[in-house]
Amino acid sequence: GVAVGGEGGGEGKGLSCGLTPNSQPKGRLCFLWQKKSFEVINCVCLCLCEPDRVLVRVQDLTPENADQLIWLRARVHTSRAKGKQCFLVLRQQQFNVQALVAVGDRASKQMVKFAANITKESIVDVEALVRKVEQKIESCSQQDVELHIERIFVISQAEPRLPLQLEDAVRPDGEGEEGMEMWKCLSVCGCVFILPKTTTSQAIFRLQSGVCQLFRETLTKKGFVEIQTPKIISAASEGGANVFTVSYFKTSAYLAQSPQLYKQMCICADFDKVFCVGPVFRAEDSNTHRHLTEFVGLDIEMAFSYHYHEVIDSITDTMVQIFKGLRDNFQTEIQTVNKQYPSEPFKFLEPTLRLEYTEALAMLHEAGVEMGDEDDLSTPNEKLLGRLVKEKYDTDFYVLDKYPLAVRPFYTMPDPNNPKYSNSYDMFMRGEEILSGAQRVHDAQMLTDRAIHHQIDLEKIKAYIDSFRYGAPPHGGGGIGLERVCMLYLGLHNVRQTSMFPRDPKRLTP
Amino acid sequence: GVAVGGEGGGEGKGLSCGLTPNSQPKGRLCFLWQKKSFEVINCVCLCLCEPDRVLVRVQDLTPENADQLIWLRARVHTSRAKGKQCFLVLRQQQFNVQALVAVGDRASKQMVKFAANITKESIVDVEALVRKVEQKIESCSQQDVELHIERIFVISQAEPRLPLQLEDAVRPDGEGEEGMEMWKCLSVCGCVFILPKTTTSQAIFRLQSGVCQLFRETLTKKGFVEIQTPKIISAASEGGANVFTVSYFKTSAYLAQSPQLYKQMCICADFDKVFCVGPVFRAEDSNTHRHLTEFVGLDIEMAFSYHYHEVIDSITDTMVQIFKGLRDNFQTEIQTVNKQYPSEPFKFLEPTLRLEYTEALAMLHEAGVEMGDEDDLSTPNEKLLGRLVKEKYDTDFYVLDKYPLAVRPFYTMPDPNNPKYSNSYDMFMRGEEILSGAQRVHDAQMLTDRAIHHQIDLEKIKAYIDSFRYGAPPHGGGGIGLERVCMLYLGLHNVRQTSMFPRDPKRLTP
Repeated sequence: GVAVGGEGGGEGKGLSCGLTPNSQPKGRLCFLWQKKSFEVINCVCLCLCEPDRVLVRVQDLTPENADQLIWLRARVHTSRAKGKQCFLVLRQQQFNVQALVAVGDRASKQMVKFAANITKESIVDVEALVRKVEQKIESCSQQDVELHIERIFVISQAEPRLPLQLEDAVRPDGEGEEGMEMWKCLSVCGCVFILPKTTTSQAIFRLQSGVCQLFRETLTKKGFVEIQTPKIISAASEGGANVFTVSYFKTSAYLAQSPQLYKQMCICADFDKVFCVGPVFRAEDSNTHRHLTEFVGLDIEMAFSYHYHEVIDSITDTMVQIFKGLRDNFQTEIQTVNKQYPSEPFKFLEPTLRLEYTEALAMLHEAGVEMGDEDDLSTPNEKLLGRLVKEKYDTDFYVLDKYPLAVRPFYTMPDPNNPKYSNSYDMFMRGEEILSGAQRVHDAQMLTDRAIHHQIDLEKIKAYIDSFRYGAPPHGGGGIGLERVCMLYLGLHNVRQTSMFPRDPKRLTP
Repeated sequence: GVAVGGEGGGEGKGLSCGLTPNSQPKGRLCFLWQKKSFEVINCVCLCLCEPDRVLVRVQDLTPENADQLIWLRARVHTSRAKGKQCFLVLRQQQFNVQALVAVGDRASKQMVKFAANITKESIVDVEALVRKVEQKIESCSQQDVELHIERIFVISQAEPRLPLQLEDAVRPDGEGEEGMEMWKCLSVCGCVFILPKTTTSQAIFRLQSGVCQLFRETLTKKGFVEIQTPKIISAASEGGANVFTVSYFKTSAYLAQSPQLYKQMCICADFDKVFCVGPVFRAEDSNTHRHLTEFVGLDIEMAFSYHYHEVIDSITDTMVQIFKGLRDNFQTEIQTVNKQYPSEPFKFLEPTLRLEYTEALAMLHEAGVEMGDEDDLSTPNEKLLGRLVKEKYDTDFYVLDKYPLAVRPFYTMPDPNNPKYSNSYDMFMRGEEILSGAQRVHDAQMLTDRAIHHQIDLEKIKAYIDSFRYGAPPHGGGGIGLERVCMLYLGLHNVRQTSMFPRDPKRLTP
């Protein structure tokens, strides 16, 4: 819907707008126009069609603009009429400013009424005088100025009833499960799409965009090449568990559970160092705070010269560059999120702490945990280990190296010095796994032997094994879950908070 | 397989290698070791385990290195034994250098024999003396030096028979269909994976990586935020044609044909300007040179102030920055591709040429084409128009603006001045479409009316329409096909050449 209030008339000017709105001037400074038509909707400009006019950003409004007449496009965040005045809070993303329409020289009674009736979340253009205020406006991001509105135009009118009040969505909720409850509720009413409007969500997803950018920039500087890998594949590389099936013309296909095979093929094709960023699909019926059926994988694979620790060093350095970049360039976003979800600042060491699996087991044993040398870590034990490591080394990020061979996939390179262990590693943030990686077996015969040992059907992985028959450099890599990195960096408790449109066994919309 | 030749013995040193190879020193400078075992394969280092040793890059070998003893890891590109000598060409990606093993002080007869028996495409470590040559070696990228090998170790042994000779893969083939033939043939023998090894493919995919990087850098500078959109969706937004179905636990889902709905939701959630890079799926049974069932979409969406040409200007400027970046930073890659597939340099104007649909029709009419005002352009007419535009304006890139409303999707904003046309546009490179975009209808009622006009089931697009009920800024955008941009920039004739692992109705592997 569109409605216009403010000084009337005037032919549309500039670009394509040739419309003459059927204006109804009322007094010097106001006209109302409720007509809703094709021409009004698709021509933003209306009588506002002034391509040379500059729209000011809310975040740029400071006392330096005092007494200037400015144009602004923003959402009506709140509106409160009081006698001959109407107070509005106008919002742009996480920034907002107080605005005022008052009966007097600059506005008529009708205009105040018009402003008071604009629905929350509508988008308006206002022409207003910037005024410095005596007392700070604590409720707004722009605390030192307010706007005295002279003209107001509704660019897009929101429906009167919102499915959820934004104020409710940004109310601090407790740990874990409560946050989860809100998500469930939103999912039920089908209006998750409103969430990214909150200042918290805005901040989360800007930071997420930063993680991707820092990841790619760091790797590009290190000589990595970005590759694009297919998501529709003909065979499930690890034997077919937890894989989504796609109808593909007259046959069936699968959704890739990881780009690993393709990354490795690029290494075999002499790309030397590659990375990719893209969706990864897991048909796992896990309804936990950290599992999604579709997430964004930040994947790395590289040939190395002499030792797979060259790979670990590249990955940990990349993570450190990401942590530093976030710390240095995303403080506003971090603090915005902390207001709703308080957490300790994320700590990391340089160089990154690398523990061997046996050392970790010793720490856990000392803390009273009973587990065998070749057992995998349970999620609670991972968390406990995270706390022990934090106490001892004061870091939220570390590498756990040399996992037992028995708990890793068949393509993992065994440790040459101790066949019970492997050249593989996980990386942890705040005690939760964010990356799993390893040196890969690059010899076709050895890979075949390992697959047989794991009782994997060789027919199904023939293409994979054949990739290594024509000369393969020693290589390794790993895959990072973007949503987990963002969740754990910010100290959040549900991966759905860092996925804009989360997918889990029960959620497919929006 | 692993085999080692060269000066023998010595304990493995450094990092994890604690192996003592059972060396069989034969003469001063050679030992052969054909043992193939677990320890040999997964410890690259063997007796080479010298983490402080620097491996030189082929591309850095110049006469400045003359008389230096260097270490190098590379593939055996070709090998030719001749009496007491063996000539090897050693390759790293698109760079190669001639190397020589000759019986004498530095190598024994056995070592020459050993070198001569190394299979093509095997990866070797060599220690060699760099020698300046009198006469340029025309067949190598490093023409001024050759390597006199003192030690040679096989790091990874290729099988003796390659499924395709690399020399065949880089042989210049003619236009269009021939290139296609090679792809078909490769597809049949199941060895497409060897293609990226060719210097041409290396160059193509490095350039592709550059396109993505330039796209993101330019948009990030313009204030765009990167978003991640889901690929598994609950409903096909445009009514269900050409969409892949996924089994999703106990229900069905679809693969996203475009991120458009999600981009638009982000605009409604005040992200202002967003982009995303990710796979796009089309279940279209089109077997042409320019259709893939899965391709990489470079997508843009932005709110604008007064006119949708602000969107066109942002997109065309982004394309121009990409073209300039490729021209300035990827000349080696462009020339490498041109050697196999000659083409004219890509031409573009600043600012980008923008033609209106009616102007284009007039040009086509003048050239003898008969078509109605509201007809869509056929592919041959697009190509013809591209040639006419090139003749008249000397540009390979232009925008065609104001398409007939009738040929565009229901969410396209009509032209306020002429309801036969729309605020929509395509962009073309060398006469082929690379982007389709438009101002979107941002008013829920108008969108409903347009959907009804297109006889679309409103139930199926309810979520989409509802996104616009809570205030939506005027906005527009478009989606670019990455593979097409690379194909057309380089003047190639099949989109399969710019997709590392192409997917079409008949191809799902590798």
